Amino acid sequence: METVTKPTNCPPLILASTSPRRKELLQGLGLDFQVMAPGVDEEGFQIQALPPQEQAVFLSKEKAMAIAKSHPDHLVIASDTVVFCNGSVLGKPKDTEDAFQMLSQLQGNHHIVYSGITLAYQNQLVSDFLGTTVWMKPLTSEEIHRYIQTQEPMDKAGAYAIQGYGSLLIEKIDGCYFNVMGMSTYLLNKLLNQWGVSFF
Amino acid sequence: METVTKPTNCPPLILASTSPRRKELLQGLGLDFQVMAPGVDEEGFQIQALPPQEQAVFLSKEKAMAIAKSHPDHLVIASDTVVFCNGSVLGKPKDTEDAFQMLSQLQGNHHIVYSGITLAYQNQLVSDFLGTTVWMKPLTSEEIHRYIQTQEPMDKAGAYAIQGYGSLLIEKIDGCYFNVMGMSTYLLNKLLNQWGVSFF
Repeated sequence: METVTKPTNCPPLILASTSPRRKELLQGLGLDFQVMAPGVDEEGFQIQALPPQEQAVFLSKEKAMAIAKSHPDHLVIASDTVVFCNGSVLGKPKDTEDAFQMLSQLQGNHHIVYSGITLAYQNQLVSDFLGTTVWMKPLTSEEIHRYIQTQEPMDKAGAYAIQGYGSLLIEKIDGCYFNVMGMSTYLLNKLLNQWGVSFF
Repeated sequence: METVTKPTNCPPLILASTSPRRKELLQGLGLDFQVMAPGVDEEGFQIQALPPQEQAVFLSKEKAMAIAKSHPDHLVIASDTVVFCNGSVLGKPKDTEDAFQMLSQLQGNHHIVYSGITLAYQNQLVSDFLGTTVWMKPLTSEEIHRYIQTQEPMDKAGAYAIQGYGSLLIEKIDGCYFNVMGMSTYLLNKLLNQWGVSFF
């Protein structure tokens, strides 16, 4: 990033997420922002019957509202990412065996990553989502075990990181790359533009 | 990157490129390597009649050979990236007017980014390429001027950086993201595997 250009007409920002990937994406755009943990129990909602993209939007709204209620004059940015494969949503692996099961499903197959974004400001909300299709190359059981040994899969939805060693496993994507990383900067910009905020 | 895992069976590495993006990609994989400028005059070859993907492979070979001839016992990694739009190859912009012309072609349109990779080791060469289709959203002249003012376009083929503010302009891609950044880590890994070198 050669020049840091602050967005114009922008209220103070809060990122309602403790994800290091989302923090890194916003920092890469030269933004000043606070990070706050929304403290939302994602397992506590009965949303399994919703389509995966609606689950991602629902959870991004819950995260945004959790912070916005006490910070109405900040612009709150929240995001939620869901990995959808063979008709099921894959969360973060509970242990290495769970990571192995997830990667066994994903290898030699395609899946869809949905990220929902919600912005909250002065009691208004705006939300949207994108879906990105991802193709992972075929992996042997031994290759999956070696990837798990890097520790990279353990805190990631779907048990891989497209920006890390996982990049060696992903043949191609169709959609927005940053959506797979955890938040599409393209979609974030589009939503900010609706509120008159622009980066350059 | 949680754990730095060195590739196994790997000779000392040289990256035959001064591109900060390619250096960053290799560092992100935890690799130890030297950086050397191949000193190849890319304008000096009469390759305009070749298809764009063959131009990228040709130039990656020239870069690899330029370093390999004096470093036969190192594994040399070279890459070349070509942006192909409306039947023409777009290089790095000469000035802001040139950047404006390129971005005017790319906006509201799709283009293909080809990156060729060549590995050289002990007088052997192996090469391959990938193509990634990129869709840029429609931009007004004013938006193009504002993007140029960030300085980001000036040293990039096609006058944009997908990993920077350019991420706000790219609606979607079809292919490998890192191929657009300058070198596909997926393809690099595939080529290294052919020589028995693996990351994990």
